[in-house]
Amino acid sequence: MDTLSVELGSRSYPILIGAHLLARGRSEIAARIKARDVLVVSNTTVAALYAPALRAALPGRRVVEVVLPDGETHKTLDNVARILDVLVANRYGRDACVVALGGGVVGDMAGFAAACYQRGVAFVQVPTTLLAQVDSSVGGKTGVNHAAGKNLIGAFHQPAAVIADTSTLDTLPDRELRAGLAEVIKYGLICDLSFFEWLEQHIDALLARDASALAHAIRRSCELKAQIVARDEHEHGERAWLNFGHTFAHAIESATGYTSWLHGEAVGAGMLVAADMSRACGKLAATEVERIERLLARAKLPLDVRAIRAADALALMAMDKKVQAGRIRLVLLTQIGAACVTADYPDEALRATLAAHFG
Amino acid sequence: MDTLSVELGSRSYPILIGAHLLARGRSEIAARIKARDVLVVSNTTVAALYAPALRAALPGRRVVEVVLPDGETHKTLDNVARILDVLVANRYGRDACVVALGGGVVGDMAGFAAACYQRGVAFVQVPTTLLAQVDSSVGGKTGVNHAAGKNLIGAFHQPAAVIADTSTLDTLPDRELRAGLAEVIKYGLICDLSFFEWLEQHIDALLARDASALAHAIRRSCELKAQIVARDEHEHGERAWLNFGHTFAHAIESATGYTSWLHGEAVGAGMLVAADMSRACGKLAATEVERIERLLARAKLPLDVRAIRAADALALMAMDKKVQAGRIRLVLLTQIGAACVTADYPDEALRATLAAHFG
Repeated sequence: MDTLSVELGSRSYPILIGAHLLARGRSEIAARIKARDVLVVSNTTVAALYAPALRAALPGRRVVEVVLPDGETHKTLDNVARILDVLVANRYGRDACVVALGGGVVGDMAGFAAACYQRGVAFVQVPTTLLAQVDSSVGGKTGVNHAAGKNLIGAFHQPAAVIADTSTLDTLPDRELRAGLAEVIKYGLICDLSFFEWLEQHIDALLARDASALAHAIRRSCELKAQIVARDEHEHGERAWLNFGHTFAHAIESATGYTSWLHGEAVGAGMLVAADMSRACGKLAATEVERIERLLARAKLPLDVRAIRAADALALMAMDKKVQAGRIRLVLLTQIGAACVTADYPDEALRATLAAHFG
Repeated sequence: MDTLSVELGSRSYPILIGAHLLARGRSEIAARIKARDVLVVSNTTVAALYAPALRAALPGRRVVEVVLPDGETHKTLDNVARILDVLVANRYGRDACVVALGGGVVGDMAGFAAACYQRGVAFVQVPTTLLAQVDSSVGGKTGVNHAAGKNLIGAFHQPAAVIADTSTLDTLPDRELRAGLAEVIKYGLICDLSFFEWLEQHIDALLARDASALAHAIRRSCELKAQIVARDEHEHGERAWLNFGHTFAHAIESATGYTSWLHGEAVGAGMLVAADMSRACGKLAATEVERIERLLARAKLPLDVRAIRAADALALMAMDKKVQAGRIRLVLLTQIGAACVTADYPDEALRATLAAHFG
């Protein structure tokens, strides 16, 4: 087992990464979830697979479960209200702990409910998807979607611990594994050229679920994210790099009603558009864009967004949280391994880039 | 005009207190609300009286209004969702500012919406009731009620400024003025004997709306609250003193469906019960309890809670946010001007105190 730390002073917390952490006889779960009253938030798919193991790992506690429908379309304020209703109905106090057992959708909603219940209760992430283990469970961003845009309602609320049992990936569908790899590739692109090179060498092993390759990818992704979050918790600066590709991705997800693209898939396609926009702005060489596209394609990520109209994508991007003074700020690459945030780009470059990729 | 400061490091903010701050030609509003995009949240009563003045004070800005129904029964998650919908519909960005124009209910909901929109946007309080000017607008507690209990859902989100125009009290009904005085008396009780003595001398002037007496009461209340919040923003310690009487008050409000008691009225009655409980625990002299009751009665606050059953009050108190490990923590007085928080009291004393006051 690896233990990393997100250094946030008195709110620092560990990320535990290892196989079989939910297995009988292991003590990490009980040691990290300290409350007597525990609310496990999960979805119909994951609860059936892992809720019994989580419950067994917490003997002597009061464990209540909320099982939500599976999928990004259910990441709504109404479902957060459902979680809050269960907390209230069980008379849970400020000393209760909310545990998110599942992927990013479950983690975002459980975390937001924990942030709002009695103005904030403890919260532990037990991510069971690759995307959640490498990205969404770390860093304290919680929230829900609004009909008009992704993650428009939420809170910063750091977990007390992240417990990533890599064995849970055994039951993850291939498509979801690939979606998670998009966020892994993101870390290489924005801040670590040598990790990007490692991914070029190991992408086939990752797709084949090679355990040691997956463990390295998860650990390195969490290390990089933990460092960025520790330096810029509330996204006043470099944390925005983590949104590389996401402004385009949110437009893709929103335009398709959160049904046909997984979030990680949209991020993969969005990163290609963002890389190409970096090129159009003269920041990134065309050969680098091709190299990025090659790795995304080898990861078997869908990259064709022509079914979405460019004008629709632009309108949806205007709802992005990075809009300031009416202008969309973009995360661009200056090379593979280095990102920047800028609102200073030619509008024509954005229009041309959108037209080249979207329909 | 007086200017106080809530000292919270980089999140410090001013409290402006004075007459006619909303009047034509004054610059304080425009100087403190810096955003281009402004959402004014108010209620049907207050919007008709003061929204035009607020709008006139913000020339050249984009000002959108949300007018909610008036009253504590409307402090719900659904109404916060309404505010969020308006923010989204107007495509407001992270650089927008939410302004609460009204009493505690408006301030709590507007602040919670500001806390959640895009994980937090700026927020300015323009309190128009005595209770909001002396208490709820300062300190960053935001939230809504749940059917099962008061303020169960919310966030800590400090305003960027509090602008208390004391002239708005001219239109405040007498009953609401008296309810606000309950919170003013609270400050004397928990931490300032000489302010309590001043209130004994000036309660009739306050009820008669003497401007200089009101100004002193508001300023001193804000000073005391600002000091406590600066020392203990997230209520790990002494900030809980500010909840003196509130555990009983929330039970009174909840038992009566938030319709027959104003919050401040319930706090007045709750403080008398809490003072009597302090006596039952041997912490406070009976003569002190009588002295407290005398001032509350002179403030014309309702103190008769016999219409509520003691057993119901106890059950509702168990939902209070101060419950820890299943035990209700109480704020008690050790003398007029000094409070403590304790879970170490005889259950029999609580039962007897409830039985003596409730039905």
